[in-house]
Amino acid sequence: MSSSEQPAASHRFDPNFTKNVIEGMGPNTTPRNRQVLGALIRHIHDFAREVELTVDEWMEGVKFVNALGEIYHNSNKTRNETHRICDVLGLESLVDEIAHKIISEGELDPTSSSILGPFWSPNAPFRELGGEIFQDGVPPNGRVTKMHGVVRDIITGKPIPGAVVDIWQASANGKYDFQDPQNQTPNNLRGKFRADEKGEYHFYCLHPTAYSLPTDGPSWQLLSLMDRHPMRPAHIHIMVTHPEFQGCTTQLYPSDDQWVKSDTVFAVKDDLVVDFKPFDDGKAVLELEYNINLAPKGYKGKV
Amino acid sequence: MSSSEQPAASHRFDPNFTKNVIEGMGPNTTPRNRQVLGALIRHIHDFAREVELTVDEWMEGVKFVNALGEIYHNSNKTRNETHRICDVLGLESLVDEIAHKIISEGELDPTSSSILGPFWSPNAPFRELGGEIFQDGVPPNGRVTKMHGVVRDIITGKPIPGAVVDIWQASANGKYDFQDPQNQTPNNLRGKFRADEKGEYHFYCLHPTAYSLPTDGPSWQLLSLMDRHPMRPAHIHIMVTHPEFQGCTTQLYPSDDQWVKSDTVFAVKDDLVVDFKPFDDGKAVLELEYNINLAPKGYKGKV
Repeated sequence: MSSSEQPAASHRFDPNFTKNVIEGMGPNTTPRNRQVLGALIRHIHDFAREVELTVDEWMEGVKFVNALGEIYHNSNKTRNETHRICDVLGLESLVDEIAHKIISEGELDPTSSSILGPFWSPNAPFRELGGEIFQDGVPPNGRVTKMHGVVRDIITGKPIPGAVVDIWQASANGKYDFQDPQNQTPNNLRGKFRADEKGEYHFYCLHPTAYSLPTDGPSWQLLSLMDRHPMRPAHIHIMVTHPEFQGCTTQLYPSDDQWVKSDTVFAVKDDLVVDFKPFDDGKAVLELEYNINLAPKGYKGKV
Repeated sequence: MSSSEQPAASHRFDPNFTKNVIEGMGPNTTPRNRQVLGALIRHIHDFAREVELTVDEWMEGVKFVNALGEIYHNSNKTRNETHRICDVLGLESLVDEIAHKIISEGELDPTSSSILGPFWSPNAPFRELGGEIFQDGVPPNGRVTKMHGVVRDIITGKPIPGAVVDIWQASANGKYDFQDPQNQTPNNLRGKFRADEKGEYHFYCLHPTAYSLPTDGPSWQLLSLMDRHPMRPAHIHIMVTHPEFQGCTTQLYPSDDQWVKSDTVFAVKDDLVVDFKPFDDGKAVLELEYNINLAPKGYKGKV
């Protein structure tokens, strides 16, 4: 930053302070820790000088951080408001993009990644192609959807037989099985499907339902300070894997959802917004076709 | 920042992402919250992109923040590692400078501010000028010091009669009364003194003793990652107040302390480094003269 771009008041402060803190790191700091912690210190200091952070505001911040860990503790480590604060500030979505974004050198881009979120389970069962994930039956206001598509290689355009499509979603009440033990058995609305020899998968799920983040903790306090709503648009989570390809963890959003343009965790990307179409096969009332594109392992794409 | 200074990889990421998160704030956000939270979001995102923060590193950060609040909870809110982390990163010292730095338009600058720290007590008793703050007697390796000086107005250079000098310090074992109930009674090594009609104060205290931050929690984990020591140089805390002047809360450091150049909380400033001189009045073995300069209320100084 040139001196003309310095915030007006910053020269009132010791110009060597931040340098001294960063250079306080000793010779045995690993290069990565030096890089990450050095940048963290620089940005924290620049932030404080730029807004002329007051002592009271800083103390509010200290109290806020302590409240995050207290909720985690008091919930027996099930309620991770720290994770949720990162989501509300866009950090999880950004870190996900940094980790996974590949811009293809060919015509087919890999399907965009999106955040994993806190509700994935390693225990979802394999189900037969064409099966249902609503193992507890269809809830009263559930709309059965036939979801299908092809998993393809971005380089060759060819299908990827054997790719595993792991899906999970909230029920029509906006709750995942973990959160709703009185209404849902474990693994309800979860399942893994193995694509056939044509790389095709198909199964029955529900049209997803929008839901609110909790409105009684620090993340809600932060959202309120920012005059923001706590809603996530309706979404279906998918995680697609194959031993020879880079996996893709993402979420699909109905294009007509009222929150799709203002997701409170900033996880929507253009190629993840989809149309559910009217359908009737005697079982489903909607159809969702979604093809998934994977990059081979080791493929870096354009930088 | 000009485009040539952008980290090489940043253009791989959605250039509108941070703007979208900041502009997610609604119309009822207060101007100050919009400024502070907007800058916070921008710096967090810039940090993540600059170092290409990994998912694992971010998750380590989430765990670290949760651990801070858990210690606070488990210590019955007496151990504030969040506060200490801010100190170790230089944030408390910076916020203190932002709040209190005044550069005088005249010849006499106000005494530099330094951090309050967690050990000030609102209950320190007034003691007579010339009295002792070691109410539990002199500890075996304690060195009695006669501390004295004048409190002056930076504009007129005249003394400020009635200014209150509030002093607190750790004992020769490096512990404050709060931390050491088996050896110290409440208010040991604390006291308030009222300057006389010449603006002069004098009392007996101890030469201060360096001490370590705790070496068993998150702040020690962070110091270890940075290959830094946990030591604070020896110091005496003072808080000087008068109804017509801007108060000064600060710390004084012996110039020959081995940690004075590398204070682990970055609270040392040049005008706070002092010389203790040999002395003998039958009671003290050292003398410390320190004059304190206060700015009148409302005085802003050079910006």
